[in-house]
Parts: sequence; C-alpha cells; structure tokens
Amino acid sequence: MQRLQLTEIRIAGFGGQGVILSAIVIGKAASILEGGFATMTQSFGPEARGGACSAQVVIDSKPVLYPYVTNPDILIVMSQEAYTKFGPELKPGGVLIVEQDLVKITGMSQAGRVYSAPATRLAEELGKRMILNIVMVGFTAAVTNILQKESLREAVASSVPPSFRELNLKAFDRGYEYGVQALQTTPETGVDENTVKVYDGV
Amino acid sequence: MQRLQLTEIRIAGFGGQGVILSAIVIGKAASILEGGFATMTQSFGPEARGGACSAQVVIDSKPVLYPYVTNPDILIVMSQEAYTKFGPELKPGGVLIVEQDLVKITGMSQAGRVYSAPATRLAEELGKRMILNIVMVGFTAAVTNILQKESLREAVASSVPPSFRELNLKAFDRGYEYGVQALQTTPETGVDENTVKVYDGV
Repeated sequence: MQRLQLTEIRIAGFGGQGVILSAIVIGKAASILEGGFATMTQSFGPEARGGACSAQVVIDSKPVLYPYVTNPDILIVMSQEAYTKFGPELKPGGVLIVEQDLVKITGMSQAGRVYSAPATRLAEELGKRMILNIVMVGFTAAVTNILQKESLREAVASSVPPSFRELNLKAFDRGYEYGVQALQTTPETGVDENTVKVYDGV
Repeated sequence: MQRLQLTEIRIAGFGGQGVILSAIVIGKAASILEGGFATMTQSFGPEARGGACSAQVVIDSKPVLYPYVTNPDILIVMSQEAYTKFGPELKPGGVLIVEQDLVKITGMSQAGRVYSAPATRLAEELGKRMILNIVMVGFTAAVTNILQKESLREAVASSVPPSFRELNLKAFDRGYEYGVQALQTTPETGVDENTVKVYDGV
C-alpha cells in the first residue's frame, strides 16, 4: 500500500473506547500534515442502541467523493461484537488489527495480515485505561504504512486537551513500540486460506 | 419541518469548540432515542490546517444513503470564518444559528430564521468555556423542532464522561432556556429578502 493512495479504514468497538477520537486522529494526520484529504463518518442507527460504536475513515491524495467504507483495507476492532460484525467485510488481503484481550479471532480467511495488541493492558500500565484508543493508533502506525509516524503523532498532540497531551503521546509511543516488535515476529504477508497468524505477546 | 424527516445540518467553528461532539450528540439523539438514523461526517483537507472545524449531520427516518451536506436545512456557526464560508450554502428558508459574540451577521438573505446565543458567555457563567458546544445544542433544541428535547438531553448525558455529565446537562438546559426566550421575541418565519432578524439578547 503506497502512502496516501485511496485507503479505507474502519475502526469499531464499544462506546467509551474512544473509537471516534482515533478516527479523527487518522483523518487529521492525512490532511493537515501530509497534504492529503480524509473523511471520517460515523453512522447512527439501531445498532448504536446496544453500545456499539464504529467510524469510517477514507484517506486519499484528492478530495474524498464517497465517504462510506464497504470493504476496508484496514479494519481495527476493539470488541468481539465489532469483530463479528465487521470482520467479514474486510477486503481480501486487507489488514486486520485487533485488541488482543477483547477479541478472540476465529477463521478470518480473507485477511492478508493480522496483528493484535493488548492495548487496554498497555494503557492501564500507563495509568489510564481510556487511552487504549491512542495505543491502537500507535500500533497501527507501526504495522501499516498508511501514514507517517510523525504525522500521526502530531495529530494525536493536536487532538487532545493540553493537559492530556503528554499521556496520549506516551500511549502512542507505547503502541508504536509494541507494533515494531510485532512486525519482527509476524510474517509480513501470506496466510493460508484457513490459517490465521496472530501476534499475541512480546 | 417535521420530526425525523430528512434534515441536513452543518455545524462549524474552530478547533477546541467541540464542534464534533455537538454533531455526535445530535446524531445519537436521532438514532438511539427516536428510532431514526443519522450520519456524522467530518472532512479533512487544506482548510483544516487553518484550525477550522466543521461537521455534517444528516438525520432521517431511514438509513442515510448520502452523508454529505451541500445545502443544510440548519446551519450552526461558531466562528466568523465558518459563517463566511458556509453561510452562502444555507438552504433558502433554512435556519441559521450563530454564536452571538463570535459571529457578526452580514446580509444573509436566504435564511428563513436566524437565532443567536452568547453560548461562550453562558458557558463561562457555568464555569467552563469549553461547554459552549452543548449550550449551542440546547439552544438549537429550543429554536428548532428537529428532535425532541429529551432525546438530545439524554444524548448529551451519554456522550460525555460521567464526571462532566452534570455540567454538560446544565449547559444544555441553559442553552435551551435561552432558546425558549429567543423564540418569544423572534418572529417564527418570514424575513424580507434583504432583512435579517437577529435575536441578540435576553
């Protein structure tokens, strides 16, 4: 995947995990710091009543004409429900990124690569569970090349209140670091049709 | 405007005013509490580099097929820049809602109704400037009938961290109260082609 080519991303989990903020960070990084364009769309409907939360991000080098994501190139999931619902929509060969302690992966034959990080646990180690979303963004920065690390990091800094900036940057860095380790132990591409490779621990 | 008919809303201001949260609250109110559907879309592009922030919300009784807003029925603006940029896009006969101390209205002939509230000042009186966005949502609830007051109020409660819930509900109530007063002193409809009626104080 080349930088700032049309890339469709879905981020999904449950309310309170900061799904929307992580989507905003990715969109902002594309537009403000890399000169591209992005849209972030959140749909509300009956499913929202159960507490599910999901956001769609489309990034491109030109204005985004169609902001709905049907088959994401990258799917980031932070709840089992989100995995069950959106997993089948992942584009064949796409990248699946999951919160390791919250999502149990069952056969996901179309994923080209699968990465998992214990983002909630890492966030708790940093002192605040609610920054798991930014841990996931840092992790995503490391295991994909959709955007430059520094763009995403600066977008984090400019998207949170000043008093939480340092903590969120730590979360980003921790997620990134974990992602770099994951890359060293996970095959880059190629899973058998019925095999899933999951990185599940340092 | 009947409840949960297709309604397009744009909310615009600058970063830090909570534009996105106010858009989320409106979308959530439509879907979770009134059984409808909504989308909230944020676009990122060159304009975002200047600190401008805008969100598009579409609410309907059925799933939203096209989430982009071109000519909003309701335009909520919280900065002069946003007013200059998006004012001309308001649907003829639409409702323009402005932050009174931040937006100076110049000829806006196509607006059916114009309402203004000193949301920043009201928020400061409640102790926290950053809740001006929720003051604006409460004000909007009073001067339009897009959604039921209680739906919006509950959406506020479920969209902010528990520790800020009470303050945000106060902000909503204060905005709503101000809006009710505005309605009593502003004509409901009908402005001459070159006249703008602005409610600008209790």
